[in-house]
Amino acid sequence: MVESKNNKDMLGRSSLISVQQALDIFLDHLAGIKVGTQSIVVTEAFDRVLAKPIHSPVDLPTEARSTMDGFAVRAVDTFGASQSSPCYLNISGEVKMGEAPLGDVKQSCCYKIPTGGLLPSGADAVVMLEQSVPVDDTMIEIVGGVGSGVNVIARGEDIGLGEEALAAGRLLRPQDIGLLAGMGIAEVTVHKKVRVGILATGDEIIAHTEAPKPGQIRNINSLALAGLVLRAGGIYTDYPIVSDREEIFLPALQQAVQENDIVLFSGGSSVGVRDLGEHVIQALGPPGILVHGVTLKPGKPVLIGMSDTTPIFGLPGHPVSAMVCFDFFVRPAMASLCGQLRQAELPAPWVEARLTRNINSAAGRRDVVRVKLMKKDDIWYAEPILGKSGSISTLSRADGYFQIDEDSQGVTENTAIKVYLYT
Amino acid sequence: MVESKNNKDMLGRSSLISVQQALDIFLDHLAGIKVGTQSIVVTEAFDRVLAKPIHSPVDLPTEARSTMDGFAVRAVDTFGASQSSPCYLNISGEVKMGEAPLGDVKQSCCYKIPTGGLLPSGADAVVMLEQSVPVDDTMIEIVGGVGSGVNVIARGEDIGLGEEALAAGRLLRPQDIGLLAGMGIAEVTVHKKVRVGILATGDEIIAHTEAPKPGQIRNINSLALAGLVLRAGGIYTDYPIVSDREEIFLPALQQAVQENDIVLFSGGSSVGVRDLGEHVIQALGPPGILVHGVTLKPGKPVLIGMSDTTPIFGLPGHPVSAMVCFDFFVRPAMASLCGQLRQAELPAPWVEARLTRNINSAAGRRDVVRVKLMKKDDIWYAEPILGKSGSISTLSRADGYFQIDEDSQGVTENTAIKVYLYT
Repeated sequence: MVESKNNKDMLGRSSLISVQQALDIFLDHLAGIKVGTQSIVVTEAFDRVLAKPIHSPVDLPTEARSTMDGFAVRAVDTFGASQSSPCYLNISGEVKMGEAPLGDVKQSCCYKIPTGGLLPSGADAVVMLEQSVPVDDTMIEIVGGVGSGVNVIARGEDIGLGEEALAAGRLLRPQDIGLLAGMGIAEVTVHKKVRVGILATGDEIIAHTEAPKPGQIRNINSLALAGLVLRAGGIYTDYPIVSDREEIFLPALQQAVQENDIVLFSGGSSVGVRDLGEHVIQALGPPGILVHGVTLKPGKPVLIGMSDTTPIFGLPGHPVSAMVCFDFFVRPAMASLCGQLRQAELPAPWVEARLTRNINSAAGRRDVVRVKLMKKDDIWYAEPILGKSGSISTLSRADGYFQIDEDSQGVTENTAIKVYLYT
Repeated sequence: MVESKNNKDMLGRSSLISVQQALDIFLDHLAGIKVGTQSIVVTEAFDRVLAKPIHSPVDLPTEARSTMDGFAVRAVDTFGASQSSPCYLNISGEVKMGEAPLGDVKQSCCYKIPTGGLLPSGADAVVMLEQSVPVDDTMIEIVGGVGSGVNVIARGEDIGLGEEALAAGRLLRPQDIGLLAGMGIAEVTVHKKVRVGILATGDEIIAHTEAPKPGQIRNINSLALAGLVLRAGGIYTDYPIVSDREEIFLPALQQAVQENDIVLFSGGSSVGVRDLGEHVIQALGPPGILVHGVTLKPGKPVLIGMSDTTPIFGLPGHPVSAMVCFDFFVRPAMASLCGQLRQAELPAPWVEARLTRNINSAAGRRDVVRVKLMKKDDIWYAEPILGKSGSISTLSRADGYFQIDEDSQGVTENTAIKVYLYT
């Protein structure tokens, strides 16, 4: 078990840890905690996470089939056939789509067969139409011999009876649904969607549909975070905005913890509000606060804790910071809770671009820099969008971001960088 | 207007064109054709495509705010202040969250202010808590001077009244929804979701829930294509499986064309079935067939046509081919029909990996090679999955694919390649 540290600095603030340390600590606490499962029809299973492995109940294809239009043959009959030395076969039958061929292919005979047609008994290969010349209605000339199995997909070649088709933890992509359909599997057991409760806190926050009085500010975070939850495959409950006072905030958070698998709250970024966030997470019982801020910009003041088995994230109030923290911490927590494997382990894909100006960073801190992409002379350039982390428009103008790692003090103009797109 | 070519080769087959030529031809025909629009609340607008530009109805923030915990000051009063030569200010007030500050900040005075607090009248900057030392309850020592505007987000700095916030054609991402909320926009006009009709044709095809008799095959394509439609932001209708006979297929296709914005059919890959596909597309009226196959593997036999304003795609029967054609042709058609801008123009992100073996390709053809990614010593390797395009399990085992372009005859082992992930 990785231990969280609770060292405080001279101003009484908790010491920061790196993004990776934070992930290690809380994913370690989440190990073994999973949301429940449910059985659903495959037509609804797209983008869900498989809870149990699937073994094929059939050989797929169920019978050998032709992969070409042509003639089903005994390969041995075509041995050595070429343009200069063709062989001749009698057309003794025809395979029709969707039907079992009658009879079997005897020596020096062949059946006409369409792509996908079931290979008739006796035949073990298919000669493509292009390698044949009709002699008359009953005979063809073969100008290219084939080996056994050529232009045929064998029984069970796609997937064999009993073979593991899909592992538990697989996020079901369109092709996985296709494979399930091919095997005749109509229902699968998947993890339930992760329920994420979203709370906005702050005496100054009002609903986006209300008109702000002086000092009030519309709720940006709840809507933006809801979109991120949906994109990560979860479902959300958007709770009413609550006050920063403990007697109101604590019971509201407690209720959200009872009703969800993960709870996010985002509030002001002032020290007082952050202290209250720490306090209420602790008040909801062990293990309590796990992470008191990270060496990440924007996103430094993030709080990560747990009440029993429910992760609680205290996201910074600034929208850009809140969304960066979602990507770095909440998304992996959601994947962990439904046991998502494999794809979660793959690297995040990127686009290469050249930075349009120098960007400085402090060593020991990871910086997330929003960029706009522009193409010039077939080269992509990334223009940093400089703006305060309270400015949501900077994130809306961004096509993606790049990272400056903890061990770097900046990136110079024209450097090739990896831009991760906001999709 | 780019003209489609209908040249036939010696075997009477239509000549193939490149993927790019095919895209140019049919996207040119689609220019100006758009699905309708609808007004929806922003909480439902995630992943929808904006039909009209949004201009900000407000200055955001509506008033200047502090971005730090500290003291709202007149910057001029702090000029030159430092550790060795501090200045002293009287604390004459305090800003509370969600409230308009009373009075104004007079010379040599300051107000206590939290992050996000509204800047009081008279003040033009904020001194961070860390740059101040309390003298007593009514006075602080400032050990770092600030210039005007420091630690303040100005009125309209995020986005100004009347400024274009989001362009028409923008796919609304979580941060765009956040920006809309911040501006107090509760409803937006978006394009309707593109309706895609999916038809499986073939006398041998049965529903995935049925037990196949010899020669029959379960319907893989309709389910896999439905997943791809959802992922591309559309909605689908899965029509009953129809026979390859014209008198059944033609009216079924006609009905689907009337009821959808795009129609996909996938059928057998035999020449006869393909000819029928060409014939029925032509029979549904001009412009008719636009593309008779492309130099793409897998996916060569794809048919692209239009009946009046409705694109019709005759996808190959092999599942892998059908899905590759969806990615290359149907997805761009869906984006075009809802006027999706910008993100559609960005490059597809990739992961760099080293190829584990030599892969040959024919010049003049684009190859799409499925790969599995594996990490060894911190390097990602891409192992090609070799298998027939009728084998859906090859696509399910794949993490992504790479392309071998028309002008290449193959890629050698250990070459660094761009792998596009199947997400």
